Amino acid sequence: MRVLFGGHLKTREQIDSPGRTRRRGDDLVRAIHAAVLGELAAVGLGRMTMEGIARRAGTAKTSLYRRWPSPHDVLLDAIAREHPQEVPSPSADDLRGDLIRALGQLVAWLETPTAAAVAAIMAERRRHPELARALYERVFDARGGRFTLTVLRHYAARGRIDPGRLTPVVADIGEALVFKLALDADAAPNEQQLAAIVDQAILPAVGLGPGGPR
Amino acid sequence: MRVLFGGHLKTREQIDSPGRTRRRGDDLVRAIHAAVLGELAAVGLGRMTMEGIARRAGTAKTSLYRRWPSPHDVLLDAIAREHPQEVPSPSADDLRGDLIRALGQLVAWLETPTAAAVAAIMAERRRHPELARALYERVFDARGGRFTLTVLRHYAARGRIDPGRLTPVVADIGEALVFKLALDADAAPNEQQLAAIVDQAILPAVGLGPGGPR
Repeated sequence: MRVLFGGHLKTREQIDSPGRTRRRGDDLVRAIHAAVLGELAAVGLGRMTMEGIARRAGTAKTSLYRRWPSPHDVLLDAIAREHPQEVPSPSADDLRGDLIRALGQLVAWLETPTAAAVAAIMAERRRHPELARALYERVFDARGGRFTLTVLRHYAARGRIDPGRLTPVVADIGEALVFKLALDADAAPNEQQLAAIVDQAILPAVGLGPGGPR
Repeated sequence: MRVLFGGHLKTREQIDSPGRTRRRGDDLVRAIHAAVLGELAAVGLGRMTMEGIARRAGTAKTSLYRRWPSPHDVLLDAIAREHPQEVPSPSADDLRGDLIRALGQLVAWLETPTAAAVAAIMAERRRHPELARALYERVFDARGGRFTLTVLRHYAARGRIDPGRLTPVVADIGEALVFKLALDADAAPNEQQLAAIVDQAILPAVGLGPGGPR
């Protein structure tokens, strides 16, 4: 069930840490990302400081300000870095499998600390509306907007499904059902349930129900 | 958009209030139901007491114990009383309209104090698992299990849709998408969005997509 992702991305700049730690840029950024999630869990969205993040990361405040203007920008960067990217089959010949894998990436992501950070932002969106907006724009929209949508667009672009069917509602079916099943059971959906979501809800919505072409 | 419901149910027993208030049974129960929601909002699930509820309702603790064994039972009763009941067209000739109305009942319910009480129970389900279980059994399951499911079963029983299509996933599509749209927009879906959910997700899932029979 576990889907690995995002663990081996390179940072845009491979700069040396300026502090006494001698950590290279990538390691330092990783430490700061872990620190910002720790800071969030400890003090909450409204009380995060650059100082607190720097202390947890064991680095100097200046090395944070060199990259990010505020604690919330550090947080968004940490969330973006771990956000999964769907990779559909290049030949577009396994829509069902690609959709199940996309939902598997969502389920795996739900168990990460960055998913907890996203939940914290959503819970406090009325107090921090600009942060919630930035989350959608810089993270969600930058990675295809919705789980399954990158896959669906890939198949639509290759004539395998009708692009007219890819409405906002249809793009939301997968995420909506994964969240709903997780809410009711207080546990992540298993592989069989993900397959049921694809077979019984997403495929019929794009015109590929039972009896239709697979 | 607003759908009225549940406001004129009779209580099972029409007994007189025993206290100085001289309120009749139905009025008293109504006052106690309002009081238990106020008590929950004020002190939280873990600290509700019969005494606190009685004080807010302006009645004696004994009149609570006559009907309910615990504060959580009062709460479940208050939630159950306001939970909407779907009423499909008897002739089963307006599936689309019946489904949109069912989702409208869900949206209207989401704005009620009892929906906030349900959210509180869900948020603390790990601390009060027996309460969450009772919520599903005594309230949700007692009213058809899911919004839209009463309607879908009504049409399946009359041969209008294939009963084999009414899987748990399909029964969850409507609720799942209403919750998802509300989460993303931080606002209840409007009538047009409810129609889109029905047309683009629920009807195709029961085999009645565009081109199919309506």
